[in-house]
Amino acid sequence: MTFANVGTLGTKPGKRDEVVAILTRRNPQLESAGCLLYEVGTNDDEPDTVFVAELWTSAEAHQASLSLDTVREAIAEAMPLLSGQMGGDRFTVAGSPLRG
Amino acid sequence: MTFANVGTLGTKPGKRDEVVAILTRRNPQLESAGCLLYEVGTNDDEPDTVFVAELWTSAEAHQASLSLDTVREAIAEAMPLLSGQMGGDRFTVAGSPLRG
Repeated sequence: MTFANVGTLGTKPGKRDEVVAILTRRNPQLESAGCLLYEVGTNDDEPDTVFVAELWTSAEAHQASLSLDTVREAIAEAMPLLSGQMGGDRFTVAGSPLRG
Repeated sequence: MTFANVGTLGTKPGKRDEVVAILTRRNPQLESAGCLLYEVGTNDDEPDTVFVAELWTSAEAHQASLSLDTVREAIAEAMPLLSGQMGGDRFTVAGSPLRG
């Protein structure tokens, strides 16, 4: 069942765009790992926050992706730029009004 | 710029699945209104919550969609089933590692 992970990453002041650059770097491994969607964004009302919305083929695929070399490298690169504040939700997709 | 709306809708106890059914009913108007993605889901750890993750062609398209007859009808139908607790984030998409 399609799994969704939506959340926020707090960044150290002024580091948001660096984190966005790391997270949006093209990573072909994600698709083969079962990533269906991975949108990264910002909202100037919260200038030290990065937003992510991800869809995966399953919760297990998402969990397994955290062990990929490329993902571990990206996490290691972003970590010093993060404030440690994180939020988010995980859910199982039930459907969409676009598909009915 | 692609606009994301991710959030939660609290429901009255036991009404979650009715709200999911309303929100996932096929609505062809959404696509022509600029809706790119509209995933609705659940998480049994929070049994009275419905989760949504939406992508729109713009924030304006999302706002305008709230005036569509079909959307107003769905909101009116769901409203008595909701607790009034809502949460969420809105952001502008900067990119995706799937696209690079």
